[in-house]
Amino acid sequence: MLLLNASDVYPFKPMTTLLYEGKAKRLYTTDREGVLRSQFKDDATAFNAQKRGHIAHKGEVNCTVASLIFRYLMQQGIATHFIEQTSATEMLVKAVTIVPIEVIVRNRAAGTLCKRLGLERGQVITPPLVEFFYKNDDLGDPLITTDHIALLQLATPAQVEVLRQQALTINAHLQALYAQAELELIDFKLEFGSLTTGEIILADEISPDTCRLWDSTDQRVLDKDLFRFDLGDPVAGYQEVLQRLQAVS
Amino acid sequence: MLLLNASDVYPFKPMTTLLYEGKAKRLYTTDREGVLRSQFKDDATAFNAQKRGHIAHKGEVNCTVASLIFRYLMQQGIATHFIEQTSATEMLVKAVTIVPIEVIVRNRAAGTLCKRLGLERGQVITPPLVEFFYKNDDLGDPLITTDHIALLQLATPAQVEVLRQQALTINAHLQALYAQAELELIDFKLEFGSLTTGEIILADEISPDTCRLWDSTDQRVLDKDLFRFDLGDPVAGYQEVLQRLQAVS
Repeated sequence: MLLLNASDVYPFKPMTTLLYEGKAKRLYTTDREGVLRSQFKDDATAFNAQKRGHIAHKGEVNCTVASLIFRYLMQQGIATHFIEQTSATEMLVKAVTIVPIEVIVRNRAAGTLCKRLGLERGQVITPPLVEFFYKNDDLGDPLITTDHIALLQLATPAQVEVLRQQALTINAHLQALYAQAELELIDFKLEFGSLTTGEIILADEISPDTCRLWDSTDQRVLDKDLFRFDLGDPVAGYQEVLQRLQAVS
Repeated sequence: MLLLNASDVYPFKPMTTLLYEGKAKRLYTTDREGVLRSQFKDDATAFNAQKRGHIAHKGEVNCTVASLIFRYLMQQGIATHFIEQTSATEMLVKAVTIVPIEVIVRNRAAGTLCKRLGLERGQVITPPLVEFFYKNDDLGDPLITTDHIALLQLATPAQVEVLRQQALTINAHLQALYAQAELELIDFKLEFGSLTTGEIILADEISPDTCRLWDSTDQRVLDKDLFRFDLGDPVAGYQEVLQRLQAVS
């Protein structure tokens, strides 16, 4: 008589394991080497997670906006971690080691920059400003200089220069895309990751959670500031961004 | 009959006018073109003036330490605003337009750097770190990058490079001087000013108010942290610094 273990009959092979849960996304492994599944959540946080909320359908809208933007940027020759959108809230991405630096690009003064430097909200910034922040929740993601990056060994000087140049190139492409949708890109955050080859590629997401976007005509806010400052229905703003982008894509 | 006004008999010509009063010094005009009188006060402030105090004899000690250090740096070829010490608490200095950037050089982690970046107090920093802060009391002297300096038009890129190189050169000279006095230079603040010719020279003061100094052997604190954190009698520490420097000068 042949005895079978349950594991032979129903071989347990988890298709996905939760690798990491962040404020806005969950990352799962897949059965493909070097490929992860990124799931966009409806959770929202602001001010270093001091303000928290839940925005119904945010995950869908952001996943779709981010997919559209990644596809657009890849058409422009930008290397990103994006592979494909697989459901309303999920995309497959290349596994990377995240560079612990948040890169902010600013075309107009807004948010913390105004507070820090006493600039007027909306002041045009020419040339665009690139800022680096140490991605460290315990420290509240502090502003860092290239010298701090070297001291903390977060990236090599050559890698920092790649981050800066990529950020400025992406800014130019995004400004062009958003302008078609009659949106003005005020500022945005980027994260990058390194592949096992050492190549640094765009990672994380680009969405109304990570960009300040104003209507080009009346400067109406259509981004996460709706949530931060209770200016209106966030998902309505996010959906308007998505619809305008879809209309020009 | 000839009538004389009092002003003809005793022509009123103020020898000095108070030009500026800061937290630690007063600046007066003199009857010499381009020359000011800098008077060191006993007032002490810390944490962006949230902590205030009065330290008897601090003005004398700091004026004498600063004079000694300026003379030493000028012997090493560093251009400074110092002309001569004229009393226990006063020195004559060249009139400059202060560059609104505080330059900090760090050889070990201490103070706000530890809090900002999560570094351990005393961690050696190699190469020395140069940081720039926007000299603006209303904004709490925020950390700025070279890109912020360009945006705010606080200095040209070439001037920023002069500030950085001068700061590192001064750091090397000061480390050598303090080492002779068995003191370790942990970090310090510099301010620079421009002459009407455009030349940028070292200004303000270098003293136990503006340097972190630890005893080389037992790492005993001999600087303003005595006042900041109520670690002991500040002026005793400052006087020890002065006596040690005088012994090797």
